[in-house]
Amino acid sequence: MNVGFVGCGRMGRGIAANVLKGGHDVLVYNRTPEKTAELVAAGARAVSSVADVCAGREVVITMLADDAALNQVTLSTSGLRDSLGQGAIHMAMGTHGVAAIRDLAKAHAETGQTLVAAHVFGRPDVAAAGQLGIVAGGPPDAVRRCEPLFEAIGRHTFPAGPAQESASAIKLANNFVLGCAIEAMGEGFSLVRKYEVDPQVFYDVLTDGLFAAPSYKVYGKIIVDEAYDNVGFTAELGLKDINLVLAAADIARLPLPSANTYRDRLLGAIARGEGELDWAIMAREQARAGGLD
Amino acid sequence: MNVGFVGCGRMGRGIAANVLKGGHDVLVYNRTPEKTAELVAAGARAVSSVADVCAGREVVITMLADDAALNQVTLSTSGLRDSLGQGAIHMAMGTHGVAAIRDLAKAHAETGQTLVAAHVFGRPDVAAAGQLGIVAGGPPDAVRRCEPLFEAIGRHTFPAGPAQESASAIKLANNFVLGCAIEAMGEGFSLVRKYEVDPQVFYDVLTDGLFAAPSYKVYGKIIVDEAYDNVGFTAELGLKDINLVLAAADIARLPLPSANTYRDRLLGAIARGEGELDWAIMAREQARAGGLD
Amino acid sequence: MNVGFVGCGRMGRGIAANVLKGGHDVLVYNRTPEKTAELVAAGARAVSSVADVCAGREVVITMLADDAALNQVTLSTSGLRDSLGQGAIHMAMGTHGVAAIRDLAKAHAETGQTLVAAHVFGRPDVAAAGQLGIVAGGPPDAVRRCEPLFEAIGRHTFPAGPAQESASAIKLANNFVLGCAIEAMGEGFSLVRKYEVDPQVFYDVLTDGLFAAPSYKVYGKIIVDEAYDNVGFTAELGLKDINLVLAAADIARLPLPSANTYRDRLLGAIARGEGELDWAIMAREQARAGGLD
Amino acid sequence: MNVGFVGCGRMGRGIAANVLKGGHDVLVYNRTPEKTAELVAAGARAVSSVADVCAGREVVITMLADDAALNQVTLSTSGLRDSLGQGAIHMAMGTHGVAAIRDLAKAHAETGQTLVAAHVFGRPDVAAAGQLGIVAGGPPDAVRRCEPLFEAIGRHTFPAGPAQESASAIKLANNFVLGCAIEAMGEGFSLVRKYEVDPQVFYDVLTDGLFAAPSYKVYGKIIVDEAYDNVGFTAELGLKDINLVLAAADIARLPLPSANTYRDRLLGAIARGEGELDWAIMAREQARAGGLD
Repeated sequence: MNVGFVGCGRMGRGIAANVLKGGHDVLVYNRTPEKTAELVAAGARAVSSVADVCAGREVVITMLADDAALNQVTLSTSGLRDSLGQGAIHMAMGTHGVAAIRDLAKAHAETGQTLVAAHVFGRPDVAAAGQLGIVAGGPPDAVRRCEPLFEAIGRHTFPAGPAQESASAIKLANNFVLGCAIEAMGEGFSLVRKYEVDPQVFYDVLTDGLFAAPSYKVYGKIIVDEAYDNVGFTAELGLKDINLVLAAADIARLPLPSANTYRDRLLGAIARGEGELDWAIMAREQARAGGLD
Repeated sequence: MNVGFVGCGRMGRGIAANVLKGGHDVLVYNRTPEKTAELVAAGARAVSSVADVCAGREVVITMLADDAALNQVTLSTSGLRDSLGQGAIHMAMGTHGVAAIRDLAKAHAETGQTLVAAHVFGRPDVAAAGQLGIVAGGPPDAVRRCEPLFEAIGRHTFPAGPAQESASAIKLANNFVLGCAIEAMGEGFSLVRKYEVDPQVFYDVLTDGLFAAPSYKVYGKIIVDEAYDNVGFTAELGLKDINLVLAAADIARLPLPSANTYRDRLLGAIARGEGELDWAIMAREQARAGGLD
Repeated sequence: MNVGFVGCGRMGRGIAANVLKGGHDVLVYNRTPEKTAELVAAGARAVSSVADVCAGREVVITMLADDAALNQVTLSTSGLRDSLGQGAIHMAMGTHGVAAIRDLAKAHAETGQTLVAAHVFGRPDVAAAGQLGIVAGGPPDAVRRCEPLFEAIGRHTFPAGPAQESASAIKLANNFVLGCAIEAMGEGFSLVRKYEVDPQVFYDVLTDGLFAAPSYKVYGKIIVDEAYDNVGFTAELGLKDINLVLAAADIARLPLPSANTYRDRLLGAIARGEGELDWAIMAREQARAGGLD
Repeated sequence: MNVGFVGCGRMGRGIAANVLKGGHDVLVYNRTPEKTAELVAAGARAVSSVADVCAGREVVITMLADDAALNQVTLSTSGLRDSLGQGAIHMAMGTHGVAAIRDLAKAHAETGQTLVAAHVFGRPDVAAAGQLGIVAGGPPDAVRRCEPLFEAIGRHTFPAGPAQESASAIKLANNFVLGCAIEAMGEGFSLVRKYEVDPQVFYDVLTDGLFAAPSYKVYGKIIVDEAYDNVGFTAELGLKDINLVLAAADIARLPLPSANTYRDRLLGAIARGEGELDWAIMAREQARAGGLD
């Protein structure tokens, strides 16, 4: 397929590289042009504007940091919406709010284009390996047309249904369940510490049985080792993320009390200047609330 | 070893049967004598009082429903404390509060006996298979003397340290982390339902990756199927349990906000008459709070 | 003084009428022109654009429903910022978010104008009587220049300090403390109802002593009478308000757990279709969470 | 009337003195006999046992620190229940849990006596002045017989209804609403402090209007002055109190999210060693959670 790609951060580069490997024709654009070098070496052609990255493309993929960047790239003059042809697809892969996705879906529909929301699960190394989980939402025809790209990029595609924002909701809800698990561990570890338990033993108990899964293993280890400066995802990003979750719940008129709980722990940690540590820092903030540390 | 066993509920019967299989000599006592029949058929001798179950025993195991039953069996006249010999061990296996365990440890120490807290992870079928996880707390010598029994009963023993209540804290904290996971799933499922997502798809996303563990698989399935009348552990028991967790945290001066959250969901469900449904009913209560159902 | 006035809702009309009574020269503009009739009858001159309402004015007062309206009136082409002269004052009286006020303050400063945030306490009847409480923030000189207007409008002016957003924070925090009082009463009433207490008796106890204040008297009465369709301030507006509070806290990196609590009750009530009832409806939602009603 | 009085702490002495002033015949008992001296000087006769304080009494009043003391004085051998005559009244005035009051009501009924729960509002100086608010629950006849005592002791009596525990629920709910107000102020003050507001100004705004009541004036002042070592009621007592509230809600199957919130703040403060400071310390703990202080 003829594909355009916007957003060459760590995730984006891995994804675009796999699109190339899949035999597709790729134009690539990044605000900071240097980041496209690797992809150009692998066969992509770099262009110097959003408009150019749309030229003759069936699908343009965006992998952007937030809603503001997505709106800017899509809706500003000579952006995706102005530049994509009739019938073309904009595949949005970053983590975005449901309102932004809903609005963009409408905006593209008005100009005869289709938005597909295709959010991914996995870190940059998983992206590089072409093993991402993908959750895809949008009109069935458009989603079907994207399948060759999903195959190039990921391990498995989960169908979210015909509304693009359904995919966004799943992505946000998944991150939210993870945040809750970290908070719950933080509370559990603080409780056993109060009773003279070696945290490693509690870790062993958890991950031996009921919680023998990556989420508990990875984040439990960070908590046991208090290795919060080994950063996978910062507290600031965690806060941005949970704010998107709460905004989605607000639109839907839904209380999410566990979201409030860990958001408050993140706010506390950030208020103490720990915003750039790993978001598992909420476990330390929890311990502090009980006078530990 | 010469072993006494008190408490022949579903868990207790499985445990005692494995003690017998391990070649130990077992006296068994249960308030309702009929429940001992199976064990007698397997080689145990039934006795008719707590005092008798202590006769000549190195270890007496209790597997009782709550702190009140444990205190009654142990501290009333002609109970375990009056009847166990010097140097004997009381191994408490039920889920108990840290205050009850702490007090019993002291009470036994005053009469020259030793309490070992040995709490277990696993359902009745796991107990019957001799595959329980065990977390054991108490004086190292006493814990060591119990090892042949742990081997008969379980798959793996986690050392909680010299304080008996450390084991209780681990057991409670583990159950608490599970309750948090159920609540988090309840919130996550209610969020995606608001965005027209088929719950099974969200289940697949969760359990495919980060949460590929029994806790999420078992309870996620109950939530997807709304199979709350397929009861593993009732909401009433869940409330009793989280109250033990909060009591342990209160003694330790520790806020546990996630505990409050799911306790409130359980209270709400019970208030609506759902106390005998599975404790995953908190997911339905969460959905209701957002006007779903 | 030469005054412009934008926003002739129920609060705005009362305020503008008192400015007129204070002997000031008033130009008035409202999107829906009919609403200016009363003020014109009282001596104001109606104009047909925001630009015109600025002509030759020392101060232009806005009393608008939300941040979007405020930004639109101020920042769009031929808005306040384009039209006010050097040294003129924009006095913003509606309830606004701290970020909007902070941004507008900067925007006006760049064009040589000054924003004064002057938020008010009191309902429309209090506004009509010229008895509002006012909290004023902004550069001391500018605030001083507004004093004749404060005297015309209000009973007492509280000085918030030189930063405009300080006044906004006070206004939001005051509303927040009120929301917490309503939620607390809702919880207290639901507790006593569970113990067969006549709600009126609990109302009498509260308002006789520690809580002999308008907030508890007014809202306690609504709760006792379940008179939620006697609407002073809707649940939807309450939600908008608490979202501004939480946004202010987010910017400041501050957890506000009580804000989460009553926001969740509002969300629940709104999800059930009660968004246009009085925001004291959170008390009914609380009762429901305990199976009452 | 012939009255017995047990419990001569600061509140008890004031109450008993007013019973004497009302012209009643008073026997007085206190575990620490010295504390009765003042009352003896005023005309009471001191006795040396609970049994003696019941001799020939129509009513025995208890003003005790907690449920344990109340149960001990009432239910132990030669306690109130053993010693009071048929038809006599036990008037319990301390703050007690609903379960303790319910159980005692039943215990007294079995021996032909009547429990009246008569809880009071007001500090020791108000008690000394005979100006307490009283909330009375129990069988109407028994409550009526106590009226001469209520008149001696208090300013106003609120009828809670025929169930004794209804009075206890009102007392607990009133204290709970107060705790919520303190927490809400703590959160409000922390928010405005983040926006450079002088706390005194926010205090003035609150207490000028909506919150012109003793609760906000007294506790707001403590928070503004950070005068937490000027102790009216300690954080430890506040925790004991909120635990009684939550226990009452648990029995009634009722979630009280605001109770959780301020209980967690109290736990945090106590964990830091501030348990003997005034319970308004929850405001400092709140400030800390946002990195203030």
